[in-house]
Amino acid sequence: MDNEAKIAVVHRYVEAFEKADLDIIRDIYAEDAVVEDPVGSEPHVGLAAILGFYEGALASGAKLELTGDVRCAGNTVAFPFKVIMPGMEIAPIDVFEFDDQGKVRSMKAYWG
Amino acid sequence: MDNEAKIAVVHRYVEAFEKADLDIIRDIYAEDAVVEDPVGSEPHVGLAAILGFYEGALASGAKLELTGDVRCAGNTVAFPFKVIMPGMEIAPIDVFEFDDQGKVRSMKAYWG
Repeated sequence: MDNEAKIAVVHRYVEAFEKADLDIIRDIYAEDAVVEDPVGSEPHVGLAAILGFYEGALASGAKLELTGDVRCAGNTVAFPFKVIMPGMEIAPIDVFEFDDQGKVRSMKAYWG
Repeated sequence: MDNEAKIAVVHRYVEAFEKADLDIIRDIYAEDAVVEDPVGSEPHVGLAAILGFYEGALASGAKLELTGDVRCAGNTVAFPFKVIMPGMEIAPIDVFEFDDQGKVRSMKAYWG
């Protein structure tokens, strides 16, 4: 998986929020993926749990805006962005780890 | 360990490069820490190996400059910065994970 493909996944992730499209989220993640958002909270384990989590997030009307370069390293990417919600903004750094099929098998969100 | 203490460690890390002071690095890391820089490369395991790695980095004259907020989450911090070397700049995101004693037990650098 080259850097271009990894960066494309990040842009599709932003698009999923832009369009409130859960199918994009479903396509990005592996069946056995683990999402920890924020790091230190109870992880969402497996695609069903992950989709439940994002269903709420997308329904909230949150939009994402990248605020810096997408960093590629090994089988991972890390990227800084803003989450823009009505009356609220947070500024996480997310790390995606990819499996051999190019699906995200681990997502960790650093904010608090 | 509160967020203020975690952010202070990040600033001491920047200071270590500013002053080319290996003692600060020695003080920041746990004895059994693991440094993976960049992610995907062979990790430096244990303080002795880590100090060897930083000895070279500090000797290169590299300086660090934070380029965004230090994000705190659980027992971790993530922060974007520039590494400024003669004729070269890179823009990593580093993630520190702290142990119960407030020492960094894991460092992962995302760039490539």
